Amino acid sequence: MQNNYCIIMAGGAGMRFWPYSRNERPKQFLDFLGTGKSLLQLTFERFRRIMPAENILIVSNCLYRDLILEQLPELKSEQVLLEPTRRNTAPCINYAIHRIRAKTDTANIIVAPSDHLILKEDVFLQIINRGIDYISKNNNLLTLGIKPSRPETGYGYIQVEEGKANLCKVKTFTEKPNLELAKVFVNSGEFYWNSGIFLWNLQTIERAFNAFLPEVNSIFEKGKNIYGTLQEADFINDAYALCPNISIDYGVMEKANNVYVICADFGWTDLGTWGSLYEISEKDENGNAVLSCDANFYESANNLIVLQKDKVAVIQGLNDTIVVETDNVLLICKKEEEQRIRQFVNEINLKYNGEFN
Amino acid sequence: MQNNYCIIMAGGAGMRFWPYSRNERPKQFLDFLGTGKSLLQLTFERFRRIMPAENILIVSNCLYRDLILEQLPELKSEQVLLEPTRRNTAPCINYAIHRIRAKTDTANIIVAPSDHLILKEDVFLQIINRGIDYISKNNNLLTLGIKPSRPETGYGYIQVEEGKANLCKVKTFTEKPNLELAKVFVNSGEFYWNSGIFLWNLQTIERAFNAFLPEVNSIFEKGKNIYGTLQEADFINDAYALCPNISIDYGVMEKANNVYVICADFGWTDLGTWGSLYEISEKDENGNAVLSCDANFYESANNLIVLQKDKVAVIQGLNDTIVVETDNVLLICKKEEEQRIRQFVNEINLKYNGEFN
Repeated sequence: MQNNYCIIMAGGAGMRFWPYSRNERPKQFLDFLGTGKSLLQLTFERFRRIMPAENILIVSNCLYRDLILEQLPELKSEQVLLEPTRRNTAPCINYAIHRIRAKTDTANIIVAPSDHLILKEDVFLQIINRGIDYISKNNNLLTLGIKPSRPETGYGYIQVEEGKANLCKVKTFTEKPNLELAKVFVNSGEFYWNSGIFLWNLQTIERAFNAFLPEVNSIFEKGKNIYGTLQEADFINDAYALCPNISIDYGVMEKANNVYVICADFGWTDLGTWGSLYEISEKDENGNAVLSCDANFYESANNLIVLQKDKVAVIQGLNDTIVVETDNVLLICKKEEEQRIRQFVNEINLKYNGEFN
Repeated sequence: MQNNYCIIMAGGAGMRFWPYSRNERPKQFLDFLGTGKSLLQLTFERFRRIMPAENILIVSNCLYRDLILEQLPELKSEQVLLEPTRRNTAPCINYAIHRIRAKTDTANIIVAPSDHLILKEDVFLQIINRGIDYISKNNNLLTLGIKPSRPETGYGYIQVEEGKANLCKVKTFTEKPNLELAKVFVNSGEFYWNSGIFLWNLQTIERAFNAFLPEVNSIFEKGKNIYGTLQEADFINDAYALCPNISIDYGVMEKANNVYVICADFGWTDLGTWGSLYEISEKDENGNAVLSCDANFYESANNLIVLQKDKVAVIQGLNDTIVVETDNVLLICKKEEEQRIRQFVNEINLKYNGEFN
């Protein structure tokens, strides 16, 4: 347990949950389910159960420093690794790996996004513990695969070879497929959703970065005597200016041939869209889901209603619609049109000089 | 002008504009059009142009005393006549008539609701001036009739005899007709909407009360030495306990045979429903009306959107719907179902112990 480390990636700035998520408060900082805790807080507490708090690092954009320290008062500020610009997941993870290396020679490392939802936390932690046990004894890269419940076209898929007890060697990674292909994947039984949660030991991931992304690794390697000092912020500013924009999936996982996957079902959703939030939400007998507020419905079905706390909605004659209300914005949009929210946000911001980003 | 008096009736507590109007702030106190002024303030200022401010009396429920004095700082508190209970318009007007009598022997009196909207104010004031001229010379009861623009079933109608220059003798008053009858009324050209705005001189209305509602008149007559003293509030409490609940239309106007009407069009609406507000509101090319906020529409038509100030709405795929948002309530309801709002309010309040009245 003292040897377990976690890297929580919290730099995202998604627009898909607008107007609930905003530029200054992306979705990882929001309390989606009205539990009183943000997705980041839930993620932190989840891993806090299997390692000391000081072994958890949060990597995020420097914009969110204060918000992170406010939401996670248990953290020391040095545990928040600040990125000056967004360079996707590979530089983010490489930076954090070097920080862990500056403290220890051996570590079991979990990498996890901060903005996913996990409903079956106990199942999840069992799997994580099994994964930690595995990577502490095997120099392989491990990822968590989710048994697909539908032919989702928004996720990456992992094809696996035969394995035992749901631990399989990875055959291929596939990016977002079209619907036809997604159906083939799901029916084959060989494909799993890529959760973006990784486990590996320190030596193995270092070796993989050296092999497949040496140009990134050498940038952060140069700072080995600087991590933890007052010079770190300046060094990182310079380092990020040199970094390519590249994901860990594309840069490392897809190229390595020692990648394994634990296939599981722990009530996972990446909460990528209002629709995915609707899917996992509790619904009344007419398929209406209500988050963090209350609503009375009349002749209404299959809606998702998200208002501010302590607010009530009275909804008549509305179907298949997302209704989201925040401080200064009300969004009403058919569920099937939610991919256009990005367009709507751009247009309202054009009108108001970016006030509603 | 010194002899002109106005009685503004401001005691209503309508539920039809819920959640925008609430028990503690009925519609006369609200700024419906985002002009910065409530309907009561607009009404007061309208009459202020043709008489001294001290000749304007506001009759309302005692609940609203502070709100009225806050919205109309020009008023002395004695100009706000407080009713302990709601007894409809006849007692309200009789009380105010006695108050005017305590000050003067001759007066031209206008009675007007506080919660109607008048768009063509100059036309309205011309008509009022013409009416004042008429009642100062004729001992008749005068009412303002509105040329009907549609077979509205929510209004009372006035049938008129032949007249000149739009001043006609009233033949009959008819309460809310059904749609078929309303169509006949409108097509006949003989029927006008009853605006609820009355003009008469002091002697004439006293005589009418004596003739048709002596039981009400005698109650308030007993206070003739008390009006304007510290005993008035106690006297009025007792008086209202004895008063029947009766309207001026039913109690006086329909019974008198000296009732005349000026027929006119001054952009009047009683703002009785969200639908009537929608009718008179400015709309975009798709029939969407937006009040006191801003909205971007996509594939949406014939909606009425009323949010709090400085808020924006993004609306996709919504039609023929009322959307109203206030501090703690969001209402979404098809326009054609708005008569059910009363039911919705009752049900949400049953659930929350009246919190959302």
